[in-house]
Amino acid sequence: MQPIDYSKRISTVTPSAIREILKVTQDPTVISFAAGNPATESFPAKEFNEIISKILTERPGYALQYGISEGYPVLRTLLKKRLWDKYGIGQSFDDTIIVTGGQQGIEMTAKTLLDDGDTLVCEEPSFLGALNAFRSYNAVLKGIPVEKDGLDLEKLEALLKEDKRVKLVYVIPTFQNPSGRVMSLAKRKALLELAERYNFMILEDNPYYDLRYDGEVVPTIKSMDKTGRVVYCGSFSKVIAPGIRVGYVTAPDWMIAKLTVAKQLSDVHTNLLMQMVIAEYLEKYDLDAHVESIIELYRPKRDLMINLLNEHCGNFMQIEKPEGGLFIWATLPEGYDGTRLCKIAGGYKVAAVPGSSFCVDDSQPYPAIRLNFSLPTMEQIEKGCAFLGEACKFYQKEV
Amino acid sequence: MQPIDYSKRISTVTPSAIREILKVTQDPTVISFAAGNPATESFPAKEFNEIISKILTERPGYALQYGISEGYPVLRTLLKKRLWDKYGIGQSFDDTIIVTGGQQGIEMTAKTLLDDGDTLVCEEPSFLGALNAFRSYNAVLKGIPVEKDGLDLEKLEALLKEDKRVKLVYVIPTFQNPSGRVMSLAKRKALLELAERYNFMILEDNPYYDLRYDGEVVPTIKSMDKTGRVVYCGSFSKVIAPGIRVGYVTAPDWMIAKLTVAKQLSDVHTNLLMQMVIAEYLEKYDLDAHVESIIELYRPKRDLMINLLNEHCGNFMQIEKPEGGLFIWATLPEGYDGTRLCKIAGGYKVAAVPGSSFCVDDSQPYPAIRLNFSLPTMEQIEKGCAFLGEACKFYQKEV
Repeated sequence: MQPIDYSKRISTVTPSAIREILKVTQDPTVISFAAGNPATESFPAKEFNEIISKILTERPGYALQYGISEGYPVLRTLLKKRLWDKYGIGQSFDDTIIVTGGQQGIEMTAKTLLDDGDTLVCEEPSFLGALNAFRSYNAVLKGIPVEKDGLDLEKLEALLKEDKRVKLVYVIPTFQNPSGRVMSLAKRKALLELAERYNFMILEDNPYYDLRYDGEVVPTIKSMDKTGRVVYCGSFSKVIAPGIRVGYVTAPDWMIAKLTVAKQLSDVHTNLLMQMVIAEYLEKYDLDAHVESIIELYRPKRDLMINLLNEHCGNFMQIEKPEGGLFIWATLPEGYDGTRLCKIAGGYKVAAVPGSSFCVDDSQPYPAIRLNFSLPTMEQIEKGCAFLGEACKFYQKEV
Repeated sequence: MQPIDYSKRISTVTPSAIREILKVTQDPTVISFAAGNPATESFPAKEFNEIISKILTERPGYALQYGISEGYPVLRTLLKKRLWDKYGIGQSFDDTIIVTGGQQGIEMTAKTLLDDGDTLVCEEPSFLGALNAFRSYNAVLKGIPVEKDGLDLEKLEALLKEDKRVKLVYVIPTFQNPSGRVMSLAKRKALLELAERYNFMILEDNPYYDLRYDGEVVPTIKSMDKTGRVVYCGSFSKVIAPGIRVGYVTAPDWMIAKLTVAKQLSDVHTNLLMQMVIAEYLEKYDLDAHVESIIELYRPKRDLMINLLNEHCGNFMQIEKPEGGLFIWATLPEGYDGTRLCKIAGGYKVAAVPGSSFCVDDSQPYPAIRLNFSLPTMEQIEKGCAFLGEACKFYQKEV
């Protein structure tokens, strides 16, 4: 039935074991801590409705016609100003283009930089969607452990000394997915120095940055990038809404030139109406106040989940309290496997993602699980944590 | 300033000479026949406004949340029914997914099938955006001339006999871009037979099919595909609106499985609100009647442009009257170059696209130009054709 072979690049991306486990989430009686979704009630639907009605009344021809690949000029201007004023992002050698969600920024960066067999260094654990994008360009993935204060730079430098094909280092330095950890300022600076010394680019994936519930703000790596070593991917998915698929990339001009080519080949341009909506939203509404309301929504969810996890699972798992983002990382004792725990948890009607699915080699046991607190309600968090406690007890008895 | 090399694949895609020529279109006093855009007045903005208001009132949480990579289930169901009922597309071994415009379907097909050095056969001339997508996966492009009744199959078979790496043949069989030509039924059948005999896949790119102004309907290649040899790319860009970036791919299940993986890596999913808008539009409104209104809008534009081109340029160029689509193809006498004519035309305040930009090797002279009649108004067509006549006279004197 399949007369033609797939390309090698796409053959390397296989459905992960995670899919089997996540099938339990299709059961509506299962409480899911397995998602990466923002809370549905946080979306500014009323504002969108007003804005869209205005745009489709006043400028329907422009909004529904082909746009340019770099993005809606008004949005780019507003966004560049915001990135500079608020985050210090966007040096004179940089530019910013609009992409169809942060994922597309990652995929296009891989396409633009990585030749077959080039080494892509990632944090381990790291975001599965990005790892698969790198795999789909035949990159050799090498994972470096994420310590409590971010990437283990000694291990990274050891790798850089022996592997001359490291072209790109992929990091989620703030509220990392899945660990929730934050790379320290010192490590951010040191990583930039390593990029100069060993001649590689850094891909800073930063979708969660604004969702900080406590602790001190740490500057982005990009804001300290004085030589054009950082490709920065941002997104409106976690602070406005993900379904609209609008993100952005800030990178040195030479990268933007080819990223624009890649963008043109990929989907010509990002949905123009949605770009206009975001632009109008930035002009007419207060995004910072909206983000603050999301923080107020998520902080109690995080606190409740942390407390209940400690109560129900604290004698088994080590629960890390993240200062921001969407995820709690729970580490099992040595000899236990997150995948097994997630399977058991499914039987107790609660879903989580096994740590192994965030690893370069996802076939090995890994003693951790990822739990999401943004999507479930407070009631679901209460029930789900109790269920997870039962699952932990079951697993402890089993071993 | 550029410390890291681009990937080889993206290096092969260079800004075309066409960009320089098309710069004249930024001058608002220039009449552009250079676009590929549908008429702005044809977009169903009022209907969109009503539908979006309803969706964002009734189901905002669903519309703005993450969706699934295959596409909005309701849209897929409606679309599959429409494709089968109206076009006979969608055998039991096929499935249909939603993509971010037809371009993404082409790009993902290339990614899924083509290894470095595989041969991609295309029509020559052909659609630049697709050719660049193939280039960006290091395919070896080989062009086969488009005759009045479509691809020259004798030349194709000669190539197939000597080149064992032909994995994919890319065609726009109906109202081809740029030539406007239609592949005959006999050739469509013969191409399917060749695909079986020489073991390759066919990528049928079909954005213009419904825009037929006269002549007999010819069935799509996909509708005659009994063995799963055809990947079919369709789009709502030319019959509803392009800015929304919603297209679709129908292909055998084994291809859809990997195309879905590619889709997930590329942009996770297509803008969900826009998918819901199209679904609601298909349910509540009459797309066929809307397409009929577009045909009534474009036919007189085509007729006027054909008449005026014959009047002003007929003694110099051979003007082909297309039975549908958006483009008129004009062939210059031997020894003349479309690129030179387009440069001269820019000076006369009218823009067209040189034929060379649709060729595998776009650095060679090519005696043709492409003219678009869907976007300009009747007045602009009148003026522009007269200007083009002046440009032709100038060029004739020059040589």
